[in-house]
Amino acid sequence: MYPNWILQRASITPLRSALTYEGQTWTFQQVNELSLKRARQLTALGVQRGHRIAIMGPSTPALVVMMYACMHLQCEMVMLNRRLTQAEIAYQLEDSQATIVLVADEDVEKLPSSVPYHEFTAIENGKEQYVDIAKEWSLNQTTSIMYTSGTTGFPKGVRQTVGNHQASATASVLNIGLQADDVWLCAVPLFHISGFSILVRSLLYGNKVQLYEHFNVEAITQNIMDGDVTHMSVVAVTLERILNTLELNKAQASPRFKLMLAGGGPVPVDYLERASALHLAVAQTYGMTETSSQTATLASEDAMKKIGSAGKPLFFNQIKISAPNAQGEGEICIRGPHVTPGYIGRFAEKSATEEGWLHTGDIGYMDEEGYLFVVDRRADLIISGGENIYPAEIENVLLAHPAIQEAGVCGIEDETWGQVPIAFVVLKEAVTMENLKQYCEKKLAKYKVPKQIKIIDTLPRNGANKLLRRKLAALLASE
Amino acid sequence: MYPNWILQRASITPLRSALTYEGQTWTFQQVNELSLKRARQLTALGVQRGHRIAIMGPSTPALVVMMYACMHLQCEMVMLNRRLTQAEIAYQLEDSQATIVLVADEDVEKLPSSVPYHEFTAIENGKEQYVDIAKEWSLNQTTSIMYTSGTTGFPKGVRQTVGNHQASATASVLNIGLQADDVWLCAVPLFHISGFSILVRSLLYGNKVQLYEHFNVEAITQNIMDGDVTHMSVVAVTLERILNTLELNKAQASPRFKLMLAGGGPVPVDYLERASALHLAVAQTYGMTETSSQTATLASEDAMKKIGSAGKPLFFNQIKISAPNAQGEGEICIRGPHVTPGYIGRFAEKSATEEGWLHTGDIGYMDEEGYLFVVDRRADLIISGGENIYPAEIENVLLAHPAIQEAGVCGIEDETWGQVPIAFVVLKEAVTMENLKQYCEKKLAKYKVPKQIKIIDTLPRNGANKLLRRKLAALLASE
Repeated sequence: MYPNWILQRASITPLRSALTYEGQTWTFQQVNELSLKRARQLTALGVQRGHRIAIMGPSTPALVVMMYACMHLQCEMVMLNRRLTQAEIAYQLEDSQATIVLVADEDVEKLPSSVPYHEFTAIENGKEQYVDIAKEWSLNQTTSIMYTSGTTGFPKGVRQTVGNHQASATASVLNIGLQADDVWLCAVPLFHISGFSILVRSLLYGNKVQLYEHFNVEAITQNIMDGDVTHMSVVAVTLERILNTLELNKAQASPRFKLMLAGGGPVPVDYLERASALHLAVAQTYGMTETSSQTATLASEDAMKKIGSAGKPLFFNQIKISAPNAQGEGEICIRGPHVTPGYIGRFAEKSATEEGWLHTGDIGYMDEEGYLFVVDRRADLIISGGENIYPAEIENVLLAHPAIQEAGVCGIEDETWGQVPIAFVVLKEAVTMENLKQYCEKKLAKYKVPKQIKIIDTLPRNGANKLLRRKLAALLASE
Repeated sequence: MYPNWILQRASITPLRSALTYEGQTWTFQQVNELSLKRARQLTALGVQRGHRIAIMGPSTPALVVMMYACMHLQCEMVMLNRRLTQAEIAYQLEDSQATIVLVADEDVEKLPSSVPYHEFTAIENGKEQYVDIAKEWSLNQTTSIMYTSGTTGFPKGVRQTVGNHQASATASVLNIGLQADDVWLCAVPLFHISGFSILVRSLLYGNKVQLYEHFNVEAITQNIMDGDVTHMSVVAVTLERILNTLELNKAQASPRFKLMLAGGGPVPVDYLERASALHLAVAQTYGMTETSSQTATLASEDAMKKIGSAGKPLFFNQIKISAPNAQGEGEICIRGPHVTPGYIGRFAEKSATEEGWLHTGDIGYMDEEGYLFVVDRRADLIISGGENIYPAEIENVLLAHPAIQEAGVCGIEDETWGQVPIAFVVLKEAVTMENLKQYCEKKLAKYKVPKQIKIIDTLPRNGANKLLRRKLAALLASE
């Protein structure tokens, strides 16, 4: 048995800061007391220990307290993505059989009609009812359920247990170290594993979270320059915006700032080099919903030596490449105590692993020193005239062009070649199509040069700002 | 399943320093390769996976490599204390049914005759045989077995599993933090949990161990002054010698030195105050063989605020006081993943815990803020005229006297009072008995004043330098 993280943290270091949001700070004791009160209010509304409930709201302290209240009640939290359509929400509620939705007032309108819910303010103003809070949790208890968007078919609800989250947080600390006054900046959604894992680490480590509801690039860059924070989780696109802001301000990261964890897909090498010039340590990391955050992360001493690598497996887990080709590239498989025990709902019978190995659907290789390089999503692979084309490779080339802000590449059907790549770009300054084409032809083998380059305003991304390549093709179709 | 710590550490950070001894340093890769070779040599000698073997030797790299080789082979290592008599060793070998003793050449003569053994140099020079090394270990696998001296009757062989050691090391890091270049000085015996847990932490954290065969106070104090090391495990008597050396040299600890973990019994308050004056951070900790090292440790921010406390439980465990008296004092009980699953040999059937709680036999209380204060060993409690007298309290008073270097107190039978306390002291300068008596009478209630004070050269201590109070009474009897 393991302790209730919230009670234990409040008991061990009650007066340490737990959370800062818009200038206000709460200690672990305060967060605990608020969440215990909220648990009593939820109890008065009929929420019981072990219920599966859904939860939706913006990244504010109210959501943190609501999540901790549900954890006190040992509820299984179905984390609803605020960007979902009503149909998608309806699917997840039906699949998960969540008994109720706890929803921030401003998000009520996003719910399908006839769904039972409690608004945050109604809960916060409601009466309290005594409830016995368990001091201990078991490793197998499901803490959170997150639906993976998947690439085809129905999203799957992934279980993340107490043991998964604990293994992830402890393995991470063995890699990146820990000091009592570390502060993690959270501007990634709390409903996504990238954000929720920051809360878990805060509870286990006793570190403060500096929470942002939105990705406020100016304020965040200021935090990094001032050393108000020591760690931050980013994806490529948010990293680029911070780099850009630092560059515009001719500023650098404070020496107190320790590390950017960059996940959600390969980070363009160009970004890593710009970060290096700004003395901003970036560790590329590889993880997913099924592994409750990081599986591999580049250790600090390797950051500049292995640019482009996602590093080595964290201490408690293992990685292997399944059925590698002649270049050593194959499907990335993962094993360890951080790997989900499985799914809920219609996929409850489907095993998440084969002989203990999670087959990720991602393509990568390990170099001779054991460093993982993630090449691309297998589902996004473009096969053109028998050649494998990795969209990320073409995107990397495009992103190094001075006029290009963001880039996304996908394959479309082609009578001659089976598939051919096309590109979508967001510009930061004007450029001719001829210039872009010549640039690509200089940098890429002919079969990799995008057959079309489309200029658009924004790329389709998910709640974690991760590029959704399969939606690119749909953009073209809808033209 | 969890990784083989040695393989995993060598795979993740092969080139980091693992061990320094007498000026020579080995990386994790080197330590791994040496221990794999040693595992093959042990295999050639008939040692097989899962065998229970005994191991004895001084704290040298040869012993570390031998232990790691046994861990590669997933052997259950019975750690023999080098100070034991032949009769005591014979008991442990018979009770544990160890198949073989792996013994440092210089320790062969300590073994009872007719015990099967392999000398270290014979193993190191022997031939190799291929053996398949498991990449994964289970949490329930027994890594080490250590006999607790116990207070009466037969010593018990305590199992320490992979899960116990992992929980201890990860809970410790959540308390004291971690940096990649931390270095732990080990001058406590490797056969004792205080020393072996330093090796475990080194493997999990990727930190270097600076190993000493003997407690060389000059060299160790120099390491602390120079910042060659960041952490060290001490007991009260070794802490005092370091303090004394620092004071004589009018020196202080390097700012790079982070923390002394002081265990093995209460540390006199006088020492903590002297350490504070020397800018040497000391965290009193509470642990034992059955908990694979620390259960509670004072957090850095509380070090000076709660002098005399062993702190709060580490993150993964819990402490309660059983059957407390009016002052809140009672038996300290412990629960958590670091608590042994039980014993071997003649105590294999004896449960180590009651409803998951280990009853320690130690007396303590928790203050209103949840800090643990360890008062004394229950077995050492002196009951005099119905009053409880804690030897540690009297020892603390004696140790604050400028002429006294070490002090030990025990009870002897008394016709009038049932028991009365007597004291044994080691002097650092000449003092009259009259002076000592008056000093005690000024500082202690009458019933606590030792009825006799004996001056002796050394106090009886175990292999971990822990005072053995039950041997004090024997000293008196043997006079």
